[in-house]
Amino acid sequence: MKIVILGTGEVCRVLAPALLSLGHEVVVGTRDPRKTMTGNPHYRLLAARHPELRLASFTNAVESADRSGLVVNAISGPACLDALVPLAAGLTGHVVMDVSSPYDWSRPDAVLDPVNTDSLGEAIQRALPGSFVVKTLNTLAAQVMPDPEVVAPDHTIFVSGDDEEAKLRVGDLLSAMGWRDVLDLGGSRTARATEMMLRMWIDASAALGTHLLGFKIVR
Amino acid sequence: MKIVILGTGEVCRVLAPALLSLGHEVVVGTRDPRKTMTGNPHYRLLAARHPELRLASFTNAVESADRSGLVVNAISGPACLDALVPLAAGLTGHVVMDVSSPYDWSRPDAVLDPVNTDSLGEAIQRALPGSFVVKTLNTLAAQVMPDPEVVAPDHTIFVSGDDEEAKLRVGDLLSAMGWRDVLDLGGSRTARATEMMLRMWIDASAALGTHLLGFKIVR
Repeated sequence: MKIVILGTGEVCRVLAPALLSLGHEVVVGTRDPRKTMTGNPHYRLLAARHPELRLASFTNAVESADRSGLVVNAISGPACLDALVPLAAGLTGHVVMDVSSPYDWSRPDAVLDPVNTDSLGEAIQRALPGSFVVKTLNTLAAQVMPDPEVVAPDHTIFVSGDDEEAKLRVGDLLSAMGWRDVLDLGGSRTARATEMMLRMWIDASAALGTHLLGFKIVR
Repeated sequence: MKIVILGTGEVCRVLAPALLSLGHEVVVGTRDPRKTMTGNPHYRLLAARHPELRLASFTNAVESADRSGLVVNAISGPACLDALVPLAAGLTGHVVMDVSSPYDWSRPDAVLDPVNTDSLGEAIQRALPGSFVVKTLNTLAAQVMPDPEVVAPDHTIFVSGDDEEAKLRVGDLLSAMGWRDVLDLGGSRTARATEMMLRMWIDASAALGTHLLGFKIVR
């Protein structure tokens, strides 16, 4: 299917090759394509390795999207709402796979915002009222997202969203990536649960000395 | 060793028999022992089954505690600070194993409080400045706390606290209960991480239709 990835950071650089290798057509959206090609050496390397990858402005990337495909929100958490709001009309009818965290990694002592009484996933769904937002993959380091085996064969990936069909489409993609334990937590409100696990991810990563970990819901 | 359990709710009713069967001496502290014996049929049943269990007022229970033992905070989250503050002097020099959650189960749409920028574990450590507070077992249903095998042989239990010796004492008790994967997350600040997992515990329990689940940090 056709997959549009919004954002050119680490998540894009990991997901794009994985999605290409699964046979999908991938378009990457960025604020300013020229700036990305000149000022982002990591992205330039990715583009050189994968000439089939298309780069476009956010608006053009969304225009090229297919309603039977997926749009991935891989814009960094604190910035993504400002970037997504102007795209709301173009994203109407689309499934948006949201992998963001409400956390500013550039601040040394950041806390989650929003949290507890709201989530970034819910805020994105409110900002994109015509889209079907599915929160997933936000409990992991980028490099583990498209390949659970980077950590271990069996850990849990969570999906949250209000539209059942959208969750099934995302679940199929997760299965194709190798995720065996896909746990549908429920509506978009349950994004609070996965976003709040970031605190454990950060502390457990520090305690264990590795970001390569996953959460298994043992039952 | 001598273990004082503060609180006569579900956690006490599960932990007390488990600790007795491990050979520990157990004293239970409550607001009003007479009221507990007349108004709390669950506790009366426990006391009838375990005549070696001693019941005392909070103050008397703490007075009977041993600094080489443990005091367990099993008072319900929203109420525990008010109950603990008057006991601060008596608890000086004691290891306090805190299993509380900052969550009011009696409210239909409760949220965590405190959360994110603080935790109940840290608040308890501040309220008991002379004690060595260790947060643990707060990521599980009560019946799983003293026996991980109720869910499965291998899942993770977390400890958070500022005193290394206190964490080792709690860790030894956890090992005796059968916990094999005891993860020391760090200082009391890391209680935020385990307390924030309550949201996932609630949502995953609802999605899976069981409270009998655990978290394994796969690495």
